[in-house]
Amino acid sequence: MKQSHLFTKTQKENPSGEMSINAQYLIRAGFVDKLSSGVYTLLPLGLRVVKKIQDIVREEMDALDAQEILMPSLHPKEIWETTGRWNVEEMYKIENEPYGLGWTHEEVITPLMKKFLLSNKDLPKAVYQIQTKFRNEPRAKSGLLRGKEFIMKDLYSFHENQDDLDDYYEKVKEAYFNVYRRLNLGDVTFLTLASGGTFSKYSHEFQTITDAGEDVIYICHKCKIAANKEVAGGTCPQCGNSELEEKKAIEVGNIFKLSTKYTSPFNLLAQNGKPLVMGCYGIGITRLLGTVVEVLSDNKGVIWPKSIAPFAVHLIQIDGGSIDVVEKCSEIYEILQKERIEVLYDNRSEKTAGEKLNDADLMGIPLRIVVSQKTLAANSVEIKARVEMEASLVKINELVNYLKRNV
Amino acid sequence: MKQSHLFTKTQKENPSGEMSINAQYLIRAGFVDKLSSGVYTLLPLGLRVVKKIQDIVREEMDALDAQEILMPSLHPKEIWETTGRWNVEEMYKIENEPYGLGWTHEEVITPLMKKFLLSNKDLPKAVYQIQTKFRNEPRAKSGLLRGKEFIMKDLYSFHENQDDLDDYYEKVKEAYFNVYRRLNLGDVTFLTLASGGTFSKYSHEFQTITDAGEDVIYICHKCKIAANKEVAGGTCPQCGNSELEEKKAIEVGNIFKLSTKYTSPFNLLAQNGKPLVMGCYGIGITRLLGTVVEVLSDNKGVIWPKSIAPFAVHLIQIDGGSIDVVEKCSEIYEILQKERIEVLYDNRSEKTAGEKLNDADLMGIPLRIVVSQKTLAANSVEIKARVEMEASLVKINELVNYLKRNV
Repeated sequence: MKQSHLFTKTQKENPSGEMSINAQYLIRAGFVDKLSSGVYTLLPLGLRVVKKIQDIVREEMDALDAQEILMPSLHPKEIWETTGRWNVEEMYKIENEPYGLGWTHEEVITPLMKKFLLSNKDLPKAVYQIQTKFRNEPRAKSGLLRGKEFIMKDLYSFHENQDDLDDYYEKVKEAYFNVYRRLNLGDVTFLTLASGGTFSKYSHEFQTITDAGEDVIYICHKCKIAANKEVAGGTCPQCGNSELEEKKAIEVGNIFKLSTKYTSPFNLLAQNGKPLVMGCYGIGITRLLGTVVEVLSDNKGVIWPKSIAPFAVHLIQIDGGSIDVVEKCSEIYEILQKERIEVLYDNRSEKTAGEKLNDADLMGIPLRIVVSQKTLAANSVEIKARVEMEASLVKINELVNYLKRNV
Repeated sequence: MKQSHLFTKTQKENPSGEMSINAQYLIRAGFVDKLSSGVYTLLPLGLRVVKKIQDIVREEMDALDAQEILMPSLHPKEIWETTGRWNVEEMYKIENEPYGLGWTHEEVITPLMKKFLLSNKDLPKAVYQIQTKFRNEPRAKSGLLRGKEFIMKDLYSFHENQDDLDDYYEKVKEAYFNVYRRLNLGDVTFLTLASGGTFSKYSHEFQTITDAGEDVIYICHKCKIAANKEVAGGTCPQCGNSELEEKKAIEVGNIFKLSTKYTSPFNLLAQNGKPLVMGCYGIGITRLLGTVVEVLSDNKGVIWPKSIAPFAVHLIQIDGGSIDVVEKCSEIYEILQKERIEVLYDNRSEKTAGEKLNDADLMGIPLRIVVSQKTLAANSVEIKARVEMEASLVKINELVNYLKRNV
């Protein structure tokens, strides 16, 4: 894509009223726009990143044999009355109409599955969706980390008995870590013990360490797990270790053995007449967008992991009015497109070299290619990875091969 | 995908309370589930179709140089007060909170573009989204044709002057017809003159002829266009022809020259100080799902066009307990998967041949391949297109080549 075509522009100044780094950078770089507190528009670059996060999550869910569906946001009052959750503070209700907006979907998925899970042969089954959720959030102040409207992946699994749920639950844990690893968050994301509700001792959160986090976790470096405030009593609940490290963190996922909490009120029963055993598993997609920015950025801007970068390559034309540079750079742009390398081409003529390089750092595309009269004099382009300090020259006739190895 | 794995099941009986063919077939075939009046869940098969419709629409929008974004549903009251539309009956409002749910997005996109369209060099620009809309619809009785919650593509374009809008508007018309043609609706979809509002004589609807439609249009076969009730005064508004054919139809798109209706209140101005000229263009994605079913079905079920069918091939194993058939059919399934031909494999052992063939007709996958002891005796499979009456035998070793020509 040509940058002159992109309708968004970068901003030098931090947007007023945004305290979080993720919102500041994402707005300044033109990835999102704030409509109101906790409510953001995904602009073209931001939507590209979100789609890539969704694709990674989707692949990991499909690998768990989960089937994708899309449930509505407009929920009739009666399903929430069935479980006694109609009057919770999270729920936005529609004025003068018997609807609430979905902030989670147990009340939809359970009666839905009751129509299809008719015998033990139909078990186990798992379904998920990637969908927009709404949550009445009075203090939405952390940018994309905590919104009133946000995109979430929610997975639900249904089992004949507890053992089968336990097995599946362990597989989901692995899949979640795959997601965080693929987003370069693996090293700073901890499986975290949390309170389990009526039916199991613990549930599990996935907490990513960042000063922007609103949670506090206690890490046991022996077990390589953490405990949240609810369950950490000064020692590791798993091994008793009392040397725990306290860290601020953001919850990027949670998994929960619901057991029969929802299958019982909706009478979703196995052939033996007992309620099915159920698990639920959430990942905040737009929260991950914000988390990646919080964790993987420096004082110049964002540093996208290759897996979710909006483009693989940022091609920057520094022409100073030189027709040679414009022609050569256009040519390289065409070649990269033909090779199906995703490229953003900064062909803007009204910007200085310094402005373009600053924008490139702010936008955080993994690989920057600069074409100027100086590089052309050496039949080369200048290549720099966003994560590195040093640039190097690569001959133009070797560029495609270089990129195929490094993109 | 193996049909035994799919969690949905077909239903023989029509769902109670659904009067429309599209809802009856889509529910019976396991494509959608009704949560409440006008509110549906997309099940795995339905979601596959919707994604393909979205991809077609996305390709046509990208070809118009429109840039994809994703705007929120939760709209602050003040933007709707700016245009005097806060108290319209379409809008669901949130109880005790200053938000309404988006049923259209002029009030979001116009102030958003004001941040980026700073000079004439930034024009023209067009942006679109594929997004869930909410609309207070007291009479939601036509299945997927008219919902309280539905998926829509909305495109907005911004221009320096009327001529530029006029040019773009014509290109959008072409793109819309491309969409309908690609969904096999081209022959029954008419460009339809509708009232234009303050700023232009006509707007345009795209109306697809079907008895399920809630609109009435008047077709001029000389001009190959139609007029809706608002503007048809017994003669064709274009050529004066008085031999108009009256037909029931469903509106599958509309395009509108908004001129300065929204750019003026939001002060989105060109360099000369005049408000920009704006167009808006909508296509109902889930409405198209319902329309395709209404138009392209017979008394046995749906007939999906190849372009949006959930799978290209329905592979049906009629084994009667024969291990040979199961083995051979599994082998064919693996081969088709390796060849990246999308296949639903009906490997269910508990269903009779008749039940399987009825389900295949109901589900409407374009090409049916039956493997039985009889076909294997001739080293063959039986192939039948959903649109045709006659089946034919194809040698197994010629199958892949046959499919490459016919899928």
